[in-house]
Amino acid sequence: MAKDEITKDFKWIGTTPDRPDGLDKVTGRARYGADFNLPNMLYAAVVRSPHAHAKILKIDASKALALKGVKAVVTRADLPTGLTGEDLYLQENTLAGEKALYDGHAVAAVAATSQLLANDAARLIEVEYEVLPHVTDVDKAMAKDAPVILPDCADHTVPEGMGPNVARMIEFGRGDLEAGYAEADVVHEQSYTTEATHQGYIEPHAAVGQMGSDGKGEMWVCTQGQWFIRKMCSAVLGTDPAQLRVTPSEIGGGFGGKTTIFMEPLPLALSRKAGGRPVKLVMSRSDVLRATGPTASASMDVKMGMKKDGTITAAEVTFRMQGGPFPGASPVGEALSCAFACYDIPNLMHVGYEVLANRPKCAAYRAPGSPMAAYAVESMVDELCRELSLDPIDVRLKNGVKEGSRASYGPKFKTIGLAETLEAAKAHPNYAVKLGPNQGRGVASGFWFNHGGETSVSLAISEDGTAQVSVGTPDIGGSRASIALMTAETLGIPYENVRVNIVETGALGVNEPTHGSRATFASGKAMWEAANQAIKEMCKRAAQKWDIDPEAVTWKDGAAHPAGDNAGQFEPMSIKEIAAEMGKTGGPISGHHESTPSGAGPSFGTHVVDVEVDPETGRVTVLRYLVTQDAGRAIHPQYVEGQYQGGAAQGIGWALNEGYIYGEDGKLQNSVFLDYRVPVASDLPMIDTVIVEVPNPGHPFGVRGVGETGITPPLPAIANAIHAATGARLRALPMNPPAVLAAIKAMA
Amino acid sequence: MAKDEITKDFKWIGTTPDRPDGLDKVTGRARYGADFNLPNMLYAAVVRSPHAHAKILKIDASKALALKGVKAVVTRADLPTGLTGEDLYLQENTLAGEKALYDGHAVAAVAATSQLLANDAARLIEVEYEVLPHVTDVDKAMAKDAPVILPDCADHTVPEGMGPNVARMIEFGRGDLEAGYAEADVVHEQSYTTEATHQGYIEPHAAVGQMGSDGKGEMWVCTQGQWFIRKMCSAVLGTDPAQLRVTPSEIGGGFGGKTTIFMEPLPLALSRKAGGRPVKLVMSRSDVLRATGPTASASMDVKMGMKKDGTITAAEVTFRMQGGPFPGASPVGEALSCAFACYDIPNLMHVGYEVLANRPKCAAYRAPGSPMAAYAVESMVDELCRELSLDPIDVRLKNGVKEGSRASYGPKFKTIGLAETLEAAKAHPNYAVKLGPNQGRGVASGFWFNHGGETSVSLAISEDGTAQVSVGTPDIGGSRASIALMTAETLGIPYENVRVNIVETGALGVNEPTHGSRATFASGKAMWEAANQAIKEMCKRAAQKWDIDPEAVTWKDGAAHPAGDNAGQFEPMSIKEIAAEMGKTGGPISGHHESTPSGAGPSFGTHVVDVEVDPETGRVTVLRYLVTQDAGRAIHPQYVEGQYQGGAAQGIGWALNEGYIYGEDGKLQNSVFLDYRVPVASDLPMIDTVIVEVPNPGHPFGVRGVGETGITPPLPAIANAIHAATGARLRALPMNPPAVLAAIKAMA
Repeated sequence: MAKDEITKDFKWIGTTPDRPDGLDKVTGRARYGADFNLPNMLYAAVVRSPHAHAKILKIDASKALALKGVKAVVTRADLPTGLTGEDLYLQENTLAGEKALYDGHAVAAVAATSQLLANDAARLIEVEYEVLPHVTDVDKAMAKDAPVILPDCADHTVPEGMGPNVARMIEFGRGDLEAGYAEADVVHEQSYTTEATHQGYIEPHAAVGQMGSDGKGEMWVCTQGQWFIRKMCSAVLGTDPAQLRVTPSEIGGGFGGKTTIFMEPLPLALSRKAGGRPVKLVMSRSDVLRATGPTASASMDVKMGMKKDGTITAAEVTFRMQGGPFPGASPVGEALSCAFACYDIPNLMHVGYEVLANRPKCAAYRAPGSPMAAYAVESMVDELCRELSLDPIDVRLKNGVKEGSRASYGPKFKTIGLAETLEAAKAHPNYAVKLGPNQGRGVASGFWFNHGGETSVSLAISEDGTAQVSVGTPDIGGSRASIALMTAETLGIPYENVRVNIVETGALGVNEPTHGSRATFASGKAMWEAANQAIKEMCKRAAQKWDIDPEAVTWKDGAAHPAGDNAGQFEPMSIKEIAAEMGKTGGPISGHHESTPSGAGPSFGTHVVDVEVDPETGRVTVLRYLVTQDAGRAIHPQYVEGQYQGGAAQGIGWALNEGYIYGEDGKLQNSVFLDYRVPVASDLPMIDTVIVEVPNPGHPFGVRGVGETGITPPLPAIANAIHAATGARLRALPMNPPAVLAAIKAMA
Repeated sequence: MAKDEITKDFKWIGTTPDRPDGLDKVTGRARYGADFNLPNMLYAAVVRSPHAHAKILKIDASKALALKGVKAVVTRADLPTGLTGEDLYLQENTLAGEKALYDGHAVAAVAATSQLLANDAARLIEVEYEVLPHVTDVDKAMAKDAPVILPDCADHTVPEGMGPNVARMIEFGRGDLEAGYAEADVVHEQSYTTEATHQGYIEPHAAVGQMGSDGKGEMWVCTQGQWFIRKMCSAVLGTDPAQLRVTPSEIGGGFGGKTTIFMEPLPLALSRKAGGRPVKLVMSRSDVLRATGPTASASMDVKMGMKKDGTITAAEVTFRMQGGPFPGASPVGEALSCAFACYDIPNLMHVGYEVLANRPKCAAYRAPGSPMAAYAVESMVDELCRELSLDPIDVRLKNGVKEGSRASYGPKFKTIGLAETLEAAKAHPNYAVKLGPNQGRGVASGFWFNHGGETSVSLAISEDGTAQVSVGTPDIGGSRASIALMTAETLGIPYENVRVNIVETGALGVNEPTHGSRATFASGKAMWEAANQAIKEMCKRAAQKWDIDPEAVTWKDGAAHPAGDNAGQFEPMSIKEIAAEMGKTGGPISGHHESTPSGAGPSFGTHVVDVEVDPETGRVTVLRYLVTQDAGRAIHPQYVEGQYQGGAAQGIGWALNEGYIYGEDGKLQNSVFLDYRVPVASDLPMIDTVIVEVPNPGHPFGVRGVGETGITPPLPAIANAIHAATGARLRALPMNPPAVLAAIKAMA
């Protein structure tokens, strides 16, 4: 959509002014997690299990504690007992209890007066293990004779007779599958696998924590959600959340991986034991890859039936996903719900298994579960289209969901923009480029729910008539800019006169993290309510001055205007004039809003990719890449484009190169960025984008979250393109040169 | 008042639980202004004028800038021009312009990579001065031929023909003075002087500032008012207040001296010039005494008439006070209003002159102006009582203001407690102790207005049903504890379940500083409004669950109860239960309040002091000291007592020892604590207190500010006691041994 259409009716929304955090970031002034320092601060190091699965027989820290300058060692024995459910799993993951459950699982932590000393001390902590059999592969972990990771992990959904590591089974569907298949002209059934990948955020987890024996604490931490840090650390440590103040740093990427805790309770626990001295803990890249939360690895079966005209008559999936050693961490539920979310199919069945494995506890990663599901389903749709010689966009248009369709996961869709993204892709010049030898084009669509979530926002008018907005959602993708634009629009003041501040937990009501593509939607919506409250108060102040009914005052262009019978009787009072007097006319002017907003409109996107495959090496070059996605309303189009491109880039990495490699010994073999290869600039073309705008009726400006959908289509789109280029169908990720070459050779 | 009376009707108010900041402070964990550090931080040093008055001919920083590691030098030329009024004076005081106006006036500042280097660089900055004649004494500064400090400083109130340094004249009164004197049996007239004293806070001013070329900045600073820092620094630097986030540190004393700015714009200006690197500036004690804001020196005339029965028939004062080199800084207006505030006198006249002098710009110091006024007036009342052989308490009871009296400064008093403090003093055992030779007893009363001020407070319920209160008033005297107690009382939850957080400017609406004894009154009142808003919302959530009218729900003991027709129909829902569900029942629960509250009830106190004077040396020993003061309602009686004792201790210092000593050369001769002698523990007896409680009708719990009144009576009470012990009347402060000895000798 052209920019002039985007900006119509708005003064600020749809423009792309300088980013409020821009200068800070390019000058190195932005403060990230490791940039906090306090007097008297200690440095922490963590002792991690070198085994994938081992009983901890003994931890002897005496040699470490004998070092001068070593101030505290914590083990599981320092944490309270009696926790249950997710709190217990968070605690187990913070420090191993009876068993170490994966390679890299934290076993002890030490605080000392320097980082070098802490590292030395960590090496002197002696841990005696009894190594146990382990399992890291999801299919092997499902077996009945697999090593038992967590005894009795199965909940009531798991049928009798399953393997010991199946924690949950999900099953839902509609219609009559057999009748559906009977109607179809072609029925295909295939299996697909994806490897675990990591969010690959540039900034490792880092925190400074301080906690007194009175249970009062403070923490400065790189996180997507300071209240979740507060809640989870308090649960793990047995303290009161309101007594812990958590200040979020600037954040160097999160992508879902910083919505939970990994090492964060450790500096607090160490501080508490070290007489309240602040403790800093910064993870290394290897720690991050070994012991934070990648996404799940998956093993998936798909069966679909299609008529000759492209109508999909029936479909089913069975997904097996591991989430690490604890229940509740795998995204299998989301994966199932996303699997057929783009399609209106009468007969459906979804079956999912959550499986434990000796791997790190999974965390959210951009549209958790959706990319794997799309890889399986969108590959299968492509297989059927190829078989029936149908255009993949036309088939998606034919079967695609629209307003009123009943979603595969239950509810009816309100206004959505899938068809518009398909039309935009079809109309884009990229779709008409003629391809050469060894080149192929792939198409796939993707979906994410989007989320509202608990939200608290305050807005205050400053003495000079500028405005500040206090939000609790860390800015991982431009939400400060987009909330400032919406604030400027709502109040009728210049963008430069707005400052959006991400505040600490002690300063605002509860907020969920920035996750579920919710920050611009939910904090923006709450800002709008708060701004309207402030506007109402400003109109009241003007009415008071004019001695007229407050109802007879309207707000326009940053000023109160007399309206109705009083129109034109007084000069408008600008926000600047009202603010200058506010102390004397009733006190400071602010607006506030707390809610758990509904109405986060689902987001759909369609990607078209052209690749060239080197038949000699199997290397895949991405020639051109198009993202079309519905933003509802693009508040700051440059940031929206950035989200689209970022999602595609991460998806391309996942498709072609990334993946956890575990050895037979259960140890992670690629725990640095030299071995765990994320795409670099030279791996990618400029990613083209079309911002489709089908306004979300659930938001005052029509916003839909844009952060997540973009990572979903690349996996199947590239697989489909490789098939188009080579005739080889790759049903396992990553599709790296050896895999592609093997697939080509297998056809010969 | 006995503790059981204080606590009646309340569960938490009137108790003295552990202070929330206690552990932090005793373990050294509390973070003061100098405790902030940032990566890449620079250190600043300031070049100060060695002259009391001098033209600045040239500033040459080339040698300083040539040093490796010196990153920026700022002079006045780096600040914007065109400011007027108080903004201009703040800027002038930050960095001298054409002239240095007092010994210690900042002329330039430098930032370098270490403190030592910055200090060296400051010494290399060459300033060429043309020394001008100066004046530091207030009476000399009033003369017509005095050196001109600020040309044309006089405002419209100053009559023709006054000296060039008289900036303002104030005049108000009532009744008929001559008729009043005619009615009197005795009329006395005397002159009194007081020297400037410093608040003597333990923590010197300290700040870390960071500002980019985009005008966005942050500051961590020791202050009584982060919004004032924001506003004033923005004015001096020409930036937008909402783009500056100011975080207050823990504060090591302020007493009014940290309600304005001195060096605070310098780290920001240096940072802006040094590419946005953070800059730390910490003042030395000598800098603090030379170049922050002491109180004014004063020269005062008092005339009063009294009948034989003790009735005061007429009174007048003429006060001359200097406020440093800029208009608006002297507390002469407050001094006049306080002068006769304790008395109901039909015929009154007040005349005041604000005079400029080559001294540092005055700042507020605990009840600004009131102690000097009390020194003059309460000494005079004592002189009259002695002359007529009347009991000083009885005379004050006879003439004292009560509910309905018209205050000397205008309005009618609502419920006040002066008489109750006098009765309490009279009834106290101290007042009956028999005195020995060279011993004497002095009595004096004191007054402070108390203040509401712009206030914004937010209160949020945490997920576990505990509460946090975000306030903008730094805690200089226990407001975190008192606000937490009132919150516990209002919500009906334990004190331990409340955390009161002092938050940064970016997180809350505007707040005036903690001044005017307003924090517990105003932030407490706003908290109460906010808590009731949250209670209303919690009742609504319960009503929703019970499916009844929200009006039919009451809040009691931390739980929602069905009431009226529904009483007993449902189990009460505790705050814990409501909070656990709040995300799903409508979102986070908070309450907010912004206002400029009226109703800050005036505070009166009466002190009784016994001294012994060594006739050989003139040394005054304070034998026993009693403070009776009306707290309205003592929320945390221990803190209230601390305020009473602290005020008395500072007043004793001011009376007996403290005072700025300027040499003939206009330089401050006692700029360290060895020479500027504040009282130490061995100088003081245990100070006895009686907390009188005459609830303030303007506050939901009856609170009156208690911070300031306590410093007012000690000056005259001790003078009166010295007179009682020796027969010598000291009409100039400080009453140190040489002065007392001279007065004794003069009688002989």
